[in-house]
Amino acid sequence: MTTLVAEAEPARRTRSARPARRDNAAKIAGVPYIVRNIPTYDILSEENLVRIERVADRILSEVGIEFRDDPASLDHWKRAGAKVEGVLVRFEPGMLNEIVSTAPSQFTQHARNPARNVEIGGSNVVFSPAYGSPFVMDLDKGRRYGTLEDFRNFIKLAQSSPWLHHSGGTICEPVDIPVNKRHLDMVYSHIKYSDRAFMGSITAEERAEDSIDMTRLVFGRDFVDRNCVILGNVNVNSPLVWDGTMTKSLRAYARANQAAVIVPFILGGAMGPVTNAGAIAQSYAETLAGCALTQLERKGAPVIFGNFLSSMSLRSGSPTFGTPEPAIGSMVIGQLARRLKLPLRCAGNFSNSKRPDAQAMQEGVMSMLSAVHCGANFILHSAGFLDGLLAMSYEKFVMDTDFCGALHSYLAGVVVDDNTLAMDAFLQVGPGSHFLGCDHTMRNYQTAFWDSALSDNEPFEKWSEEGGSTDMAARANKRWKKTLAEYEAPPLDVATDEALMDYIARRKNSMADAWY
Amino acid sequence: MTTLVAEAEPARRTRSARPARRDNAAKIAGVPYIVRNIPTYDILSEENLVRIERVADRILSEVGIEFRDDPASLDHWKRAGAKVEGVLVRFEPGMLNEIVSTAPSQFTQHARNPARNVEIGGSNVVFSPAYGSPFVMDLDKGRRYGTLEDFRNFIKLAQSSPWLHHSGGTICEPVDIPVNKRHLDMVYSHIKYSDRAFMGSITAEERAEDSIDMTRLVFGRDFVDRNCVILGNVNVNSPLVWDGTMTKSLRAYARANQAAVIVPFILGGAMGPVTNAGAIAQSYAETLAGCALTQLERKGAPVIFGNFLSSMSLRSGSPTFGTPEPAIGSMVIGQLARRLKLPLRCAGNFSNSKRPDAQAMQEGVMSMLSAVHCGANFILHSAGFLDGLLAMSYEKFVMDTDFCGALHSYLAGVVVDDNTLAMDAFLQVGPGSHFLGCDHTMRNYQTAFWDSALSDNEPFEKWSEEGGSTDMAARANKRWKKTLAEYEAPPLDVATDEALMDYIARRKNSMADAWY
Repeated sequence: MTTLVAEAEPARRTRSARPARRDNAAKIAGVPYIVRNIPTYDILSEENLVRIERVADRILSEVGIEFRDDPASLDHWKRAGAKVEGVLVRFEPGMLNEIVSTAPSQFTQHARNPARNVEIGGSNVVFSPAYGSPFVMDLDKGRRYGTLEDFRNFIKLAQSSPWLHHSGGTICEPVDIPVNKRHLDMVYSHIKYSDRAFMGSITAEERAEDSIDMTRLVFGRDFVDRNCVILGNVNVNSPLVWDGTMTKSLRAYARANQAAVIVPFILGGAMGPVTNAGAIAQSYAETLAGCALTQLERKGAPVIFGNFLSSMSLRSGSPTFGTPEPAIGSMVIGQLARRLKLPLRCAGNFSNSKRPDAQAMQEGVMSMLSAVHCGANFILHSAGFLDGLLAMSYEKFVMDTDFCGALHSYLAGVVVDDNTLAMDAFLQVGPGSHFLGCDHTMRNYQTAFWDSALSDNEPFEKWSEEGGSTDMAARANKRWKKTLAEYEAPPLDVATDEALMDYIARRKNSMADAWY
Repeated sequence: MTTLVAEAEPARRTRSARPARRDNAAKIAGVPYIVRNIPTYDILSEENLVRIERVADRILSEVGIEFRDDPASLDHWKRAGAKVEGVLVRFEPGMLNEIVSTAPSQFTQHARNPARNVEIGGSNVVFSPAYGSPFVMDLDKGRRYGTLEDFRNFIKLAQSSPWLHHSGGTICEPVDIPVNKRHLDMVYSHIKYSDRAFMGSITAEERAEDSIDMTRLVFGRDFVDRNCVILGNVNVNSPLVWDGTMTKSLRAYARANQAAVIVPFILGGAMGPVTNAGAIAQSYAETLAGCALTQLERKGAPVIFGNFLSSMSLRSGSPTFGTPEPAIGSMVIGQLARRLKLPLRCAGNFSNSKRPDAQAMQEGVMSMLSAVHCGANFILHSAGFLDGLLAMSYEKFVMDTDFCGALHSYLAGVVVDDNTLAMDAFLQVGPGSHFLGCDHTMRNYQTAFWDSALSDNEPFEKWSEEGGSTDMAARANKRWKKTLAEYEAPPLDVATDEALMDYIARRKNSMADAWY
């Protein structure tokens, strides 16, 4: 092989270097997380970023944020020097930036299988399933409320995909289990049916603490105190209100040295301004306050700067998802988060479609690409959403995980080295011939191109005659059933399993069922 | 309203500033083309760009390009100082870069309606329909060969969409018309049924000249000599071969001061290396040679630097489209074209799906977003492709034009000014309230968010009870029929129309039908 330059540059290969492709995704090892080999997509000038930050400063100092039903949070703010009047807290410009500077810019979330540990922050990208739908749907049975069986099925589907890196949290609500007890079953299911990192409950302080307690049975108390093993996703009650349930859960995670993900959900025109720049300034202010509160609870605790922009149908007032304004707005969120040196959660795979159809993937891809372009480190909602986040679709879930696979190749970027530049191939092949059998092709073809498990790339005739003229939804329907049928649980230490079961039984016995 | 800074920065509003939304897209005026308000997405370092350029230099100087069946091209190269041996031409590094420096970095393509003129180059983005499929398909009649009626239908659908800017060229092959005559009907149909700019034939030198002659009847001979009014899309026979049919057409367009679009079609592993960096270097070399040839034919003639990367299924050997490697590779093509200061055509809306389904839009959106991210100025294939470019789908066409609409909002970026920052809204609304009726919302809501004509954003119940539980394909099927039914042709001067008809009759009578 002719070398192009005297010194061969070492290839900037990443962890996303692609494994050999096989038809059965379950056999592919995957990578624990992606290290991106392309830069983030920065769209706004320094001047305009500063203008947004200044508006956030004014929101924080002139308007303020209410911290309701959590006196301990107010005490934190008083001690930190904020102006507290009743539940309204106002912050001098720069104060919160100073406080969050003690949070790590990158941290490890440990999985019970150490090979599955994820690095959150920096150039790393972690794909996690969607979160929080009350409904599930599939092509056979349509839409219905989610159950614990559905919840476990989605964990199994996630665990079976080499293209997700995290088991997620409330993948769907298991509405057949009492509200005050379902977190126990959810955390247990993540531990039992997946060996990846996962998320715990935030719906009440004691449920957050239960979730963390259960990780202590898996990892040991000291280990948990020193390392992040569980995430809690806490929401701002936008505009500019932090509810006590959320701040108490946030503080429970921080207190235990676990990572809270701080996420305002701003539906432009309702919970925030109808214009992107203002909505971004508001969410920045809300998230920054939440991130700072974690540091007041425990300096140095990991925290993730989260965001969720969305838009609204101006004809019906319905929220819309996978639309262009939130997608491009996410780029700005990414730029702002990097200026704070905090790990970022932003966007995900969103759609309003009620079917796993063209709308579902049009919206999903636009939204998901915005997540990887903006530099999100932890991409919650990477797979499964339909119906405006209200339903987890079995078909969409496997479509999305397949697309996550494509993103592994995308984020590997364009590698430039002597091998990829292929000068030897040009010298061997020359004009008017073909590269099908040349040495360079033989050396590289197995890892050259992403091979989707769900796309039909056959010629029309073969597709219609042999393939049954299927659409992607029908192929996805077959695939999730096959994947569930072939699923095998990762081994779990028997003593740990028993300790978890005991804990759950004890906690469940300690309280009456509650359905709110 | 409180102003944030002393001097209100004028909003960087673009031509893509959105008009008021209405349900009937035909009533929306649209914009003649987009001026992007977001930067291009540059992923490769200067060092790696130079390495790719150096390999292109070596391909051009050590391997060379064959120019077959066109002695006039070889004469051009000899006069320019290239090394010509038989049909093989080799170029000293830097020679072609010097030659293309006389091509304009931006030019106007005139439409017969001057309000529809497009600017090609710079920050401008022009969406044009897909090009070249032998088949058409719709949900009612399935796939069949395209006819002149189909061809005209697609022109009408394009003309009716405010989100396309160009009428395109061979939107589908009208296979019911003899091969040697169909270009006359195609060019006439573009002029008759659209008032936008369009493309002519390249399948033979005399057909290119017929196409250009017809524009002289519309614009006048002198005007055409001084201005670009028609494009011709010419393909390299990769690897490293320019066929005489193509170079003769290329020279016909350049000679008439019209713009050739120079496009290698490289299926990685077949017509080029299986690795992106090498395929990019090759296509760069091939395109550069074609662009240079236009300047040797007529210095200063407009030309578009084109590219079409694609990938291959390593299981079946089928070409694949809308995959991650060509998408990310397009970013590098964009960077290289900007270093040459030439307008760029790159990527488009590609899919291998045989249905307007989830696969179609997953692949289409990934591919189409790569086109706008990479800075393509003229995006051929913006709407309609299915079946691996072999079929134009009526449903996919209207889905894609709707998505082109979303891209108008996306490319408008995040506008940062006093209005969008919404400080007045925060001061008015405060914590815990909502923005639904506040002054800022009332002032901005009509233009705030993209409103898709095809996405269903209703709640599940309304969608299933009142909406018929449709998927996007079914809605698209209704929409294209409604659009065709409501289509009205733009007025065409009667004398011009008659002159065109006369020209066509004369040319058709001058030759026997030929079907090859």
